[in-house]
Amino acid sequence: MNFAPVPEQLAYIKKGFSEIIREEELKQRLEASLKTGRPLRVKAGFDPTAPDLHLGHTVLLRKMKHFQDLGHTVIFLIGDMTGLIGDPTGRNITRPPMTREELNRNAETYKAQVFKILDREKTELRFNSEWLEPLKYEDIVRLCAKYTVARILERDDFEKRLKENTPISMHELLYPLAQGYDSVMLKCDVELGGTDQKFNLLVGRELQRDFGQVPQIVATVPLLEGTDGVEKMSKSKGNYIGITEAPKVMFRKIMGISDALMWRYWELLTDASLPDIAAMKSREPMAVKMELAGRIVTDFHSAAEARQAGEDFDREVRQGGEPADIVTVDYGAVREIRVPQMLVELGTAPTRTEAERLVKAGAVEIDGARYTALKWSPRAGTYSVRTGKKWKKVSLKD
Amino acid sequence: MNFAPVPEQLAYIKKGFSEIIREEELKQRLEASLKTGRPLRVKAGFDPTAPDLHLGHTVLLRKMKHFQDLGHTVIFLIGDMTGLIGDPTGRNITRPPMTREELNRNAETYKAQVFKILDREKTELRFNSEWLEPLKYEDIVRLCAKYTVARILERDDFEKRLKENTPISMHELLYPLAQGYDSVMLKCDVELGGTDQKFNLLVGRELQRDFGQVPQIVATVPLLEGTDGVEKMSKSKGNYIGITEAPKVMFRKIMGISDALMWRYWELLTDASLPDIAAMKSREPMAVKMELAGRIVTDFHSAAEARQAGEDFDREVRQGGEPADIVTVDYGAVREIRVPQMLVELGTAPTRTEAERLVKAGAVEIDGARYTALKWSPRAGTYSVRTGKKWKKVSLKD
Repeated sequence: MNFAPVPEQLAYIKKGFSEIIREEELKQRLEASLKTGRPLRVKAGFDPTAPDLHLGHTVLLRKMKHFQDLGHTVIFLIGDMTGLIGDPTGRNITRPPMTREELNRNAETYKAQVFKILDREKTELRFNSEWLEPLKYEDIVRLCAKYTVARILERDDFEKRLKENTPISMHELLYPLAQGYDSVMLKCDVELGGTDQKFNLLVGRELQRDFGQVPQIVATVPLLEGTDGVEKMSKSKGNYIGITEAPKVMFRKIMGISDALMWRYWELLTDASLPDIAAMKSREPMAVKMELAGRIVTDFHSAAEARQAGEDFDREVRQGGEPADIVTVDYGAVREIRVPQMLVELGTAPTRTEAERLVKAGAVEIDGARYTALKWSPRAGTYSVRTGKKWKKVSLKD
Repeated sequence: MNFAPVPEQLAYIKKGFSEIIREEELKQRLEASLKTGRPLRVKAGFDPTAPDLHLGHTVLLRKMKHFQDLGHTVIFLIGDMTGLIGDPTGRNITRPPMTREELNRNAETYKAQVFKILDREKTELRFNSEWLEPLKYEDIVRLCAKYTVARILERDDFEKRLKENTPISMHELLYPLAQGYDSVMLKCDVELGGTDQKFNLLVGRELQRDFGQVPQIVATVPLLEGTDGVEKMSKSKGNYIGITEAPKVMFRKIMGISDALMWRYWELLTDASLPDIAAMKSREPMAVKMELAGRIVTDFHSAAEARQAGEDFDREVRQGGEPADIVTVDYGAVREIRVPQMLVELGTAPTRTEAERLVKAGAVEIDGARYTALKWSPRAGTYSVRTGKKWKKVSLKD
């Protein structure tokens, strides 16, 4: 394997991480890799649940991709042992143990999504049951002996729960050790995770040292802000962009973020280098944002769909034109229409009262002209009806 | 099996325990046992090291015997899993893992000693590796899930060490759970242990409840004071009476304890009932102490040896006579003896300087008369030489 020069690799890798422990070690490890031709082994672990990924999840996947781009080995580790056990506390009745079939199915769902970013051929997919399942009492005692209670309880959330007398079940203490043991078994050079995973990643460092390995480098990615620019991106907060959302929806959501957040998205959601991003700052922000939206839609759909979504956005929103995919509702031969009721029927107003308010407030346009009367007697033909930002067409026959 | 009436059993069992949790449950369990004819299952666990037992260890063994006397099943459980693992912290270099052969050998050593008290035929000897060795990661996670960190850390010594920042290794938290799991696997009705074991015994109660069993009754014995009547009996403190010590030594050590401590030894080291012990208090204490010493020597040696030890003690100590088993050293035809050097040679003084001091202080008697000169020119014959409490004979020829 021929690797790029270390400073070049480092610059590419460093972008977007919130912390690297330690950068100096990473540099040395890259130098050794360049010298010996041995790629680094880079792990990130994932829950065995197969969620609908949103852009927040892709920050980590993208950093994995960057290592892959540089020729290193990326390990997509599914923590299936947890899934096979379920939640043994019995407190969480929604988490019964999964079967091997369910886990394999979830792995497939993962693949379908993550290989939009990662290179399938260059990704090592592993399950940690491979080495956790054969562990015996003796092995677990030995593993536990390598770590002290005080250090485990230093983890922020454990410390907080102990103080607040929120029960911590004994088995929860085993998970950081199991995660660290994963790194030992996989002989990881680097482990990636969210900032909230920092403690667990560091346990891996310590266990590897105990097992006579060179401790892994730990690199954390920040939690991505949602489209509101304030809260962490999450499905429940409604500020997310799902990676399976339609090109047009994705494009519009990205166009709706603030200019400030756009620069963060460029950093965390694209392969653009920091100098390239810096150079963009002299350009017109709206154009740069269109380019960002185009890139992201291309990643998860295609260049053609991204171009179409961009054209649609340009016509509909920037030029105020009607959407290309406007829905037409057939009204037959009706000649006298109550406008509020029509808006409810078209789905552009929730109630007739609200629809009437909208009409009176001047929020309704028919064929581009404001319409403030409550009745409408159109001739045959097709009309564009806009209520605020919502567009529908109405077709009437003779 | 025909059991004695419950009040009778209870009176016999209760003697010597410092705590029973809970006595009411014990009563109910005995009643059920009487009704169904099913003996109770009574466990006590022991380290896999095979120590020279002293009387302190027999307090627990005696309580096991009492259950046995009443017809119940006693389980002598050897915690060999710990022995097979060794001390995995690496802090204690004196505890490498034991082999199965060593463990079996230790079990034999145990048997040789404990069956002086317990009935070999009625004792179930078990090793906890039987069920701990096959446990897998999944089982251990499930087991740990049944207990909270806060409850484990309530154990006195854990709490203290955490506060003092003395490291607690993670694997130490597993031991109380393993001990509790032993009770589950053995379906124990009662578990016995020292007062310092109370926490671990109670974990068994909770785990049994979680596994759908009726929680075991927990009964703790106090730590026996050594011959000084102050500190816990221990080999390192030099205040112990070993169960393999010679009858005469054992007898004398017991005769050396205080009258107050004697009553405690009657309670904790014999099968005498509390009313019987109370009745003895009107008798002459020295006679009661002789009887105690005789009983204990009988337990670990024989009635004949106990009688001999009693007679020896009576003659040598109470009547001030010389010991029956006095050693004779042959001095040949020597006619001029330096007394200090002789005392060193006889082993009754450590150095010549010390020997000279003893002679001058009047601590040396030859044939019953104080001898304060430093030289001695005896005729042929055999002489008793006493230095303080140490007796030897010297024989001289023509």
